[in-house]
Amino acid sequence: MNSDTSRLFIRACFRQPVRRTPVWMMRQAGRYLPDYRAVREKYDFITMYKTPELVTLVTLQPVERLGVDAAILFSDILVIPEAMGMDLQFLEHRGPVLARPIREDGHIDALKDVEPEVDLAFVLESIRQVRRELNDRVPLIGFSGAPWTLATYMVEGGSSRHFGQIKRWRFAHPVGLHRLLEKITRAVVAYCRAQIAAGAQAIQLFDSWAGILDATGFNEFALNYVHRIIQQIRTPGVPIIYFARGAGTWLSRLSRCGADVIGLDWQVDLGLARRVLGEKAALQGNLDPTALYAPPPVIRKQVREMLRQYGPGSGHIANLGHGILPDVPVEHARAFIEAVQTESPVWHTQQTATRPEEP
Amino acid sequence: MNSDTSRLFIRACFRQPVRRTPVWMMRQAGRYLPDYRAVREKYDFITMYKTPELVTLVTLQPVERLGVDAAILFSDILVIPEAMGMDLQFLEHRGPVLARPIREDGHIDALKDVEPEVDLAFVLESIRQVRRELNDRVPLIGFSGAPWTLATYMVEGGSSRHFGQIKRWRFAHPVGLHRLLEKITRAVVAYCRAQIAAGAQAIQLFDSWAGILDATGFNEFALNYVHRIIQQIRTPGVPIIYFARGAGTWLSRLSRCGADVIGLDWQVDLGLARRVLGEKAALQGNLDPTALYAPPPVIRKQVREMLRQYGPGSGHIANLGHGILPDVPVEHARAFIEAVQTESPVWHTQQTATRPEEP
Repeated sequence: MNSDTSRLFIRACFRQPVRRTPVWMMRQAGRYLPDYRAVREKYDFITMYKTPELVTLVTLQPVERLGVDAAILFSDILVIPEAMGMDLQFLEHRGPVLARPIREDGHIDALKDVEPEVDLAFVLESIRQVRRELNDRVPLIGFSGAPWTLATYMVEGGSSRHFGQIKRWRFAHPVGLHRLLEKITRAVVAYCRAQIAAGAQAIQLFDSWAGILDATGFNEFALNYVHRIIQQIRTPGVPIIYFARGAGTWLSRLSRCGADVIGLDWQVDLGLARRVLGEKAALQGNLDPTALYAPPPVIRKQVREMLRQYGPGSGHIANLGHGILPDVPVEHARAFIEAVQTESPVWHTQQTATRPEEP
Repeated sequence: MNSDTSRLFIRACFRQPVRRTPVWMMRQAGRYLPDYRAVREKYDFITMYKTPELVTLVTLQPVERLGVDAAILFSDILVIPEAMGMDLQFLEHRGPVLARPIREDGHIDALKDVEPEVDLAFVLESIRQVRRELNDRVPLIGFSGAPWTLATYMVEGGSSRHFGQIKRWRFAHPVGLHRLLEKITRAVVAYCRAQIAAGAQAIQLFDSWAGILDATGFNEFALNYVHRIIQQIRTPGVPIIYFARGAGTWLSRLSRCGADVIGLDWQVDLGLARRVLGEKAALQGNLDPTALYAPPPVIRKQVREMLRQYGPGSGHIANLGHGILPDVPVEHARAFIEAVQTESPVWHTQQTATRPEEP
């Protein structure tokens, strides 16, 4: 157990001095890893995330194979709609499908209140198993979908091209949409609290569909609810990360939700983001996931550029700007992790010279 | 001929005083119009844009049916790759497909230089016919795809989920990508000049895939080339509009391309955009296209909010933040146009009181 490395991620989330920049990857427990594919060949996706032993197995793979500085629980954001009573399937080539999507007010009333200890016991048991297995080598990140993104799936019934259904609610029936978002928010609060109680050492809220909103709608239908969740789940020592994909347009508003860390997609200029947000939050991200298609020397160059953009000092958690793609060679993923770990210490030397690494 | 109304759009592009805000819609000659569908039932899409009589027919439909303040030529951005020698098809449910996409340097050499008067004569003849038919009721906007977006289609061979092919070029072979962009840029310059010579009274450059780029890549692979094109096609009295979808993250850089008008998607806060760009360019946009699913009273309310966000004075061309969707009821489209035309005069009264409407 290396207590120094194990603290890097949490310290950077709270902008405390570190000796190098910590790094992990969204979807790091995923198909680009041969070890993952070997498990996935034997079990369907839903069986995998509902079986604590399999969750533990694949959650630890990137820690052991790539040496990432944080583990993230292998799961899916759609466990919440499922726990609320919706029928969830994952179809090959089509992605997630929620049967009987929410299309009228009556459908909202039919949604169940979520009791995480009952409805999502498999997640909580997975967290406990992963924590035991990790044995404090690196911290474990739990996560949830943010209300707007969950509502989008629940109303559309899956992915969508123009998101016509949820947008009809947004423009033509905002009162109904707020009722739905309220109900989802209660479920997310209960779910995140339960994850923290079970041992999650950080929480990331994924707002994957924030970017389909308009400027006014983003405040009203996304950020407001995330703010409320963060107030209600805040726990000393447990950083909260808000990742809103496609929200770079609203950079200056992102910290209003009160998150300790703002996750950035690859569109955002990391230097600009630090100038706008750096006094209020740590930043996580944001190499273009497709940069990992390039050969390792190019990956190293891109990582160097990302570290230069952020500049000196703590408050940066290196990551991709979105999930790692399934057809990235595993050696390229490793090149990314290694490049951050070997290229970043120079950006932290001044700090560690004047301030001790651990208090 | 109402010379007053006919000048609104061009005057607003140059931020000259107007008595009300002009309005048109991207894809206004399109499937949401019953008149358009009647033509489309008889001819395939490629036949339509290659036949000047049909182009004239559908280009004028929204002018006559909805009273928009500008016409935009019915065409497609992929006429350039086609003129460069690529085989283009439009497949139902799949969109455009370019056969034998550009995947290596040799493919670039095989691309033809474009002579618009020969290779794109059908566009130029269409412009002449539309101008005759319009008889100066409203101005005619010509357009082209911007180089980055055209390169994306040419390398991917069509639409794409992760744009893995063009991103491989961007990260692993930027020299080759620049060669391709150079060649496309020459074609776009010749094409825009020819459109202006044939009678196009404004030019819009569509960078539909700008938003897939990273912050550094946007400057290097998109904006640089647009800047060069605008310098080379600039013609007195002919405004140039740059519409880069998903580029709200880079708001402060957008005016660097030298466009008279910056087109904004619906993510952007119009008030913020005016504070950042208003001294340098007029702004076009940006109601969420899905807002037109809502009933007319909601559309009117949303239009009022858009006009309020922009605030008083000229320099705003009302539009949607992206193309009108095919399943929008035509009465909703009409409600949008009418709302802008009737709600906007109050934002121009002060100016017209102190400055004459026409010089």
